[in-house]
Amino acid sequence: MEVGKKTRDGEIVLQGIAASRGIGIAPVHVVARGFSAPEVYPIRDVDAEKARFRVALEKTKDQLRELQERIAGISGEEEGRIFEAHLMMLEDRAIVDRVNETIENRRQNAEHALYAVAQNFLEAMRRVPDPYLRERTADIEDVCQRVLRNFSHEEKQTNPDDKHILVAYDISPSDTATMDRRHLVGFATEMGSVNSHTAILARSLGIPAVVGLQDAVLDLQALMPAIIDGYSGKLILNPTEETLTRYRQLQSDKEKVRYELEAQRDAEATTTDGRKITLSANIELPSELPLVQNSGAKGIGLYRTEFLLLKGEQMPGEAQQAEIYTNLAKALSPDPLIIRTLDSGGDKLPVEPLTEPEPNPFLGWRGIRVSLDRPNMFKEQLRAILRASAHGHVAVMFPLISGIREVRKAKDLLKESMDELAADDVPFDENIETGVMIELPSAAIIADLIAPEVDFFSIGTNDLIQYTVAADRVNHRVADLYRPTHPAVIRLIKQTIDAGAQHGVWTGVCGEMAADIQLTPLLLGLGVEELSVGPHQVPRVRRAIRALSHAECAAMADEAIRTPLSFDVLDLSTALASKYYPELLD
Amino acid sequence: MEVGKKTRDGEIVLQGIAASRGIGIAPVHVVARGFSAPEVYPIRDVDAEKARFRVALEKTKDQLRELQERIAGISGEEEGRIFEAHLMMLEDRAIVDRVNETIENRRQNAEHALYAVAQNFLEAMRRVPDPYLRERTADIEDVCQRVLRNFSHEEKQTNPDDKHILVAYDISPSDTATMDRRHLVGFATEMGSVNSHTAILARSLGIPAVVGLQDAVLDLQALMPAIIDGYSGKLILNPTEETLTRYRQLQSDKEKVRYELEAQRDAEATTTDGRKITLSANIELPSELPLVQNSGAKGIGLYRTEFLLLKGEQMPGEAQQAEIYTNLAKALSPDPLIIRTLDSGGDKLPVEPLTEPEPNPFLGWRGIRVSLDRPNMFKEQLRAILRASAHGHVAVMFPLISGIREVRKAKDLLKESMDELAADDVPFDENIETGVMIELPSAAIIADLIAPEVDFFSIGTNDLIQYTVAADRVNHRVADLYRPTHPAVIRLIKQTIDAGAQHGVWTGVCGEMAADIQLTPLLLGLGVEELSVGPHQVPRVRRAIRALSHAECAAMADEAIRTPLSFDVLDLSTALASKYYPELLD
Repeated sequence: MEVGKKTRDGEIVLQGIAASRGIGIAPVHVVARGFSAPEVYPIRDVDAEKARFRVALEKTKDQLRELQERIAGISGEEEGRIFEAHLMMLEDRAIVDRVNETIENRRQNAEHALYAVAQNFLEAMRRVPDPYLRERTADIEDVCQRVLRNFSHEEKQTNPDDKHILVAYDISPSDTATMDRRHLVGFATEMGSVNSHTAILARSLGIPAVVGLQDAVLDLQALMPAIIDGYSGKLILNPTEETLTRYRQLQSDKEKVRYELEAQRDAEATTTDGRKITLSANIELPSELPLVQNSGAKGIGLYRTEFLLLKGEQMPGEAQQAEIYTNLAKALSPDPLIIRTLDSGGDKLPVEPLTEPEPNPFLGWRGIRVSLDRPNMFKEQLRAILRASAHGHVAVMFPLISGIREVRKAKDLLKESMDELAADDVPFDENIETGVMIELPSAAIIADLIAPEVDFFSIGTNDLIQYTVAADRVNHRVADLYRPTHPAVIRLIKQTIDAGAQHGVWTGVCGEMAADIQLTPLLLGLGVEELSVGPHQVPRVRRAIRALSHAECAAMADEAIRTPLSFDVLDLSTALASKYYPELLD
Repeated sequence: MEVGKKTRDGEIVLQGIAASRGIGIAPVHVVARGFSAPEVYPIRDVDAEKARFRVALEKTKDQLRELQERIAGISGEEEGRIFEAHLMMLEDRAIVDRVNETIENRRQNAEHALYAVAQNFLEAMRRVPDPYLRERTADIEDVCQRVLRNFSHEEKQTNPDDKHILVAYDISPSDTATMDRRHLVGFATEMGSVNSHTAILARSLGIPAVVGLQDAVLDLQALMPAIIDGYSGKLILNPTEETLTRYRQLQSDKEKVRYELEAQRDAEATTTDGRKITLSANIELPSELPLVQNSGAKGIGLYRTEFLLLKGEQMPGEAQQAEIYTNLAKALSPDPLIIRTLDSGGDKLPVEPLTEPEPNPFLGWRGIRVSLDRPNMFKEQLRAILRASAHGHVAVMFPLISGIREVRKAKDLLKESMDELAADDVPFDENIETGVMIELPSAAIIADLIAPEVDFFSIGTNDLIQYTVAADRVNHRVADLYRPTHPAVIRLIKQTIDAGAQHGVWTGVCGEMAADIQLTPLLLGLGVEELSVGPHQVPRVRRAIRALSHAECAAMADEAIRTPLSFDVLDLSTALASKYYPELLD
């Protein structure tokens, strides 16, 4: 089975990065940004293909002129002019020539050549902050859609209501909010790394994923049968019967292990020497609640409320938020629901369009910074959280805290929100637990000064690592520097836990690191009291905790803290993992 | 004197952010990116102005058609087609309509309306990674230049050979490399903050600067007389005689203080209780050497070699670099020359064009990461540095170190470079001092592990602060979080100095913080042994050091390290500064 090459039987194997474990077998559903990719196939007669393009182009122009006249007749000259721009585009030699060139150079069908040229322009124009130019991207999409419809033969359509493997350039946090996850059996993306949003989401949902397939996937034919192998990072197209049989067997073996793990859902997450760890779940959407309950997680350790934001829309109002939070709190009670206040910006949706783009969004206006700058919006959320706190065990957590001042400001607004509710006789939990994310180096370094202000710490390892070593976790050029076991990171975690312990503040970890069972021995050894992971990851992490001795982990962590190289730290932790649960490490 | 408004006498005061102290009196020279701004003036007759535009447009089209024919006659049809795109642009209703709209809405002359529309497009298109679209920006510039030349009256031209205040949208690190600094009496920019590159550069050169003037400056008329006030952050246009007199007096007073400070150039930078501080200078260009010598700095603590990179070009070869470094080393001998290896990327020029833009360049491929990924280029620089080390006191310093692995790799390449030179019998200093920048939180946190590997630490506070609190220092939305006195920053500095001291490694500070005399008491108190600042800042910092008692500073720093709020830390340091050198704090 040669990678990236067709075998004799027509099977094609694309190699990417294994991002979420599992096997999926289903046709691919290719989604492009804006409009979907047409079928691509090789052509022989370049001139004939250019002629097909010319015909489709002329047909489209005729339609546009007709439309223009009709609309001008109804709504007046001015309204009809909207199509003038579209017509101009079809006459733009820059675009037309490039499509013809692509047909000639790549020897591929005109539809796909047009699509590829348009994508190129769109991709480029979308990064442009000028609203006028941005508007024109919609025009280009429209016009290309029209031309595509005018090609002489019909395009096959995928039906995303059937089970499918979603194939895309990339999947942004905002896409996931509107995605129908029920029929998804896998993600495959061109972009991305093990730490990208797609990867994190897939792991959290327990959906197999392969990322970083490079520039291959948008050329895939719609509905092509495929296998996604989230263990080895492969996307296998047109699999042979032999390959299919092998993967079906693997799939059923893995499912058996999974059922066994899930069967232990009522077991405590306690080490062999009796240290009890709170094992809870991270969610993005309220619809994940059944997954949480099925996993046996002890409540929700991180509810990411920024996923209430929809593209181009504001946060839901206080009443609607309160209803969402209350339903969750009731369903989980008496287990806790830790609600993280809005963490917008960075790579997530902004709460409002930024007039000028930020050169470094990860070092920009995000998290608590946005909330403190928009106190009315923030207090709506705080009051909604407080309202829910009357109906279950609710805690509130502030993201991206950099220092004392922010904690105090946030708490002042929480107090104001309480006073407002009290004035209206609305019940709430006056002693609502308040915590902060420790995800900036500054917060970890002064954890001793922050501890007296809060009830709990939750370490967000994804951000903490990326800021500590100044490496964007989704930038493949520096991905190698992003290491959870960097000695500086280990020290910051240790420092946070110790500072918390001195002030009666418990510390959890809710970043990706919490779900990596190679690192469970290290985190337990450092003294972590809570782990919050994707619902699908709960059973494995529970099994890992139950296999470990806390004393042995602590001795190992003592050694790790004095070890200069991240590889060696990783080896120390992995040694214990391999000793106690080799069967989980595949 | 009302801000942003014309007074009765025609004087206009624009308020920005004071970025570099000093007064400058000279006409403004407005530079736009790509081509220079035409004069702007209000118009009354909108239709007449649109007609002027139409005439210029038609004249340009005629010229282009003629050119097209002529070139087609000489070089063939194909070559002539280059002008087709230009013609199409002039017929693009999107552009033409926008210019007419701008004339109408802003009631300004057609030249400037065209310029503003073009700038808008250019600004947007320059951020586009698509090479095809990027190419078109040059077309737009060309075509606009042509139209501008065809307007019915002649445009005034500034003469940058006379003394002038440079007014620009922004000044990038790459612009400064080619800038003629001799006639500059001030910088004024639309963009920027106190910590932006323009500000840092201006302070280092001792040139008054006002940044963050918002969207006003590109509309200024060329050669308008002006005063720049780098103390209060004002740009005063068309100043009255009264204002001029007042500012001339202020200028001469300030110059007197400056001469007095410079007269002390041979005095030691020693505290009143006898602690000697090494006070050295930062430079970007070898041409700054006379400034360094005039300042009385004890050598160069930071030579930023990335300024050898010119736009679109590679680093000079080994021989050329060796010559530059050798000349500097000889001129400074016996004082040291600390050469920082290439620190490209981030907000500085990349060594090679990036095929895909980085979403967060400050967390991307920059500093030592680039050098280690391009070992041949890196070794050329290392060998050039080693060659120079035979002719003076040369040290080498690596930027953006995140951990031990990078230090060891860099040192391995240094060793290889030595072996190569030795094989060719080229002399060099075998014991060349080797240091690292401490500018990532991870490096400061594990300074104890890094210390055994090096001879010195140089704390780069600009980056250290921005990563520790995750706030891009040039993003005005989060500028408030960028605080040198954040307790986490103070702790990292202290930790670094202490770790160094335990291993016989000296620690200096070469970031902006080193030049802020409000913070000199704090830095001395924390135990800093070297300060490296812009040549123009040396005299003031020397004076500050000579006024302070180290014991008193140390006692204050002990208190600062336990203080939770950055404001309070700042107050502690400022109290000592005000006590001992109030006359320097204006």
